[in-house]
Amino acid sequence: MPDRLALVPGEPAGVGPELCVRVAQQPPECGLLAFADPDCLSRAAARLGLPLRLVDPDAPGGPGVLPVHPVPQARIEQPGKPDPANARAVIDALLAGARACRSGEARALVTGPVHKASINAGGIAYTGTTELLAAEAGVDVVMMLANPDLRVALVTTHLALRDVADAITAEALERAIRITLRALTDDFGIAVPHLAVLGLNPHAGEDGVLGREEIEVITPVLEHLRAQGHRLSGPLPADTAFLPRKLTEVDAVLAMYHDQGLPVLKHSGFEHAVNITLGLPYPRVAVDHGTALDLAGRGIADPSSLQAAVSLAATLAARRGNAPLRTHSDVA
Amino acid sequence: MPDRLALVPGEPAGVGPELCVRVAQQPPECGLLAFADPDCLSRAAARLGLPLRLVDPDAPGGPGVLPVHPVPQARIEQPGKPDPANARAVIDALLAGARACRSGEARALVTGPVHKASINAGGIAYTGTTELLAAEAGVDVVMMLANPDLRVALVTTHLALRDVADAITAEALERAIRITLRALTDDFGIAVPHLAVLGLNPHAGEDGVLGREEIEVITPVLEHLRAQGHRLSGPLPADTAFLPRKLTEVDAVLAMYHDQGLPVLKHSGFEHAVNITLGLPYPRVAVDHGTALDLAGRGIADPSSLQAAVSLAATLAARRGNAPLRTHSDVA
Repeated sequence: MPDRLALVPGEPAGVGPELCVRVAQQPPECGLLAFADPDCLSRAAARLGLPLRLVDPDAPGGPGVLPVHPVPQARIEQPGKPDPANARAVIDALLAGARACRSGEARALVTGPVHKASINAGGIAYTGTTELLAAEAGVDVVMMLANPDLRVALVTTHLALRDVADAITAEALERAIRITLRALTDDFGIAVPHLAVLGLNPHAGEDGVLGREEIEVITPVLEHLRAQGHRLSGPLPADTAFLPRKLTEVDAVLAMYHDQGLPVLKHSGFEHAVNITLGLPYPRVAVDHGTALDLAGRGIADPSSLQAAVSLAATLAARRGNAPLRTHSDVA
Repeated sequence: MPDRLALVPGEPAGVGPELCVRVAQQPPECGLLAFADPDCLSRAAARLGLPLRLVDPDAPGGPGVLPVHPVPQARIEQPGKPDPANARAVIDALLAGARACRSGEARALVTGPVHKASINAGGIAYTGTTELLAAEAGVDVVMMLANPDLRVALVTTHLALRDVADAITAEALERAIRITLRALTDDFGIAVPHLAVLGLNPHAGEDGVLGREEIEVITPVLEHLRAQGHRLSGPLPADTAFLPRKLTEVDAVLAMYHDQGLPVLKHSGFEHAVNITLGLPYPRVAVDHGTALDLAGRGIADPSSLQAAVSLAATLAARRGNAPLRTHSDVA
């Protein structure tokens, strides 16, 4: 039964497990296969007072019935307090979900929020799930955040600000543009996508007065790719590239770094925003929020982003496979 | 007649002169005194087909009648094509306007957009008007952008991205916070302002995993100032600090650098956004847009931001002076 999405809750002490329980209650949009500690999911369901029957990975799911590939935690989670002892289980669940997608056992990967510091404290060098999945698959990827109105892709992701400028090389930029354009076509169905590429510096360097990376790196790459027929605007000043009337003209914005592109996206539609990894051999969609430790275990976390992630993952998987995913009901 | 605002159009080849002509047509909100080449303003009025009578600096103004302190250009402007030969006149007009405010001849400064590269090409080292006015007055300042819904202040402004991290020192940050808090009280009338301070790195460094400036610089400064009774949140992750529900809780956001804070502000209300310089001995408000060379001379540029700047400058000047400004009509 390959027509399922792999669902990985993420940090056991965050809101991920309870959001997965809520999504598993709902009228099925597509089949799900969780990668998690079954006891953690059961505890989350009990805290919510919701029914949840966990079944074997190969068994059919349905509302309140969730197939689980077990990935045992070292310790019982304390909501709100990540335990580095569980770092290994968090990473193993992500890797198992990724492998299931690569083997065809699942058709797309949906992930909840993880806690970077806790994973690192657990002795595992980790900067983000996007980077982890790229390494697992041995490919280059691009992180894209999207809500119903706006798509923002990033050249660099989870990198200290002082390291960003040196990371914007011609090679990295060209790779990011190519991956983004290909995904806009293959996954989003846009025949000739128009991508707005931001500058690195304020005012896109203002003709070299505020930095020279636009002149020396970004513009040459854009000219090279435009000559191959790609529709690329830029380098654009970041502060005005997001004016609503300008966004109507492009299919996505490529920002040079995390905080240049994501504040607008989250300001303009956080609840329904998701995080998409472009370039993997399978679609991967994640929630666009963190572990929300202050909310964890209280039953008040909003599952909108996880629901949107499941929904988009099903759409992307269907487009790659040229066939709709079967739903829970079909599977059952 | 000191109850006037100093109005400086900025780059002669940009939209500044025509925006000033439009503002000078309108029912008077307050007295204006322009610092510009009179012939440039006359040419802009002629291109727009609007009446404009320029009078001596001490003469009364009114709709279509604008007092001007003459600052001659070296060459006649070509709309859309900045001429470095006019760089000196652009800077001299700004400095003359600033001096008029410091001497009491005007009560606030309103400025149009300038073209950095052209000024530098004209042999004058220049990174921004904010920095120029700070040097002229011999004070430290903070640049704030504001629209009716949001105020964003910046610790660093027109600085290449690769130089930002080293510029975020404890001294610079404490200075920026103090100037911003004082202006929120003195100029905006907020007794105990609540300021949201962003981190420097993605996710505010995520407990040191993505950079250590939050731990080593920002958090200690915030703790020091909180102990003195100031209301400061942070260091906050920039991507989620601008969620609409979070913005309702604070009076302003302090971003560490230009493209971390301004894309959201311009996305959320560009037309009515203005640029305010905090910390000067007089209020200064500028348009929140560039020279718009593609629009210059065509009569289609939107004067909303300049109108908003004039309006806010009048309000701020009145609050400092504890008296409303006299209007054109009153002066006349």
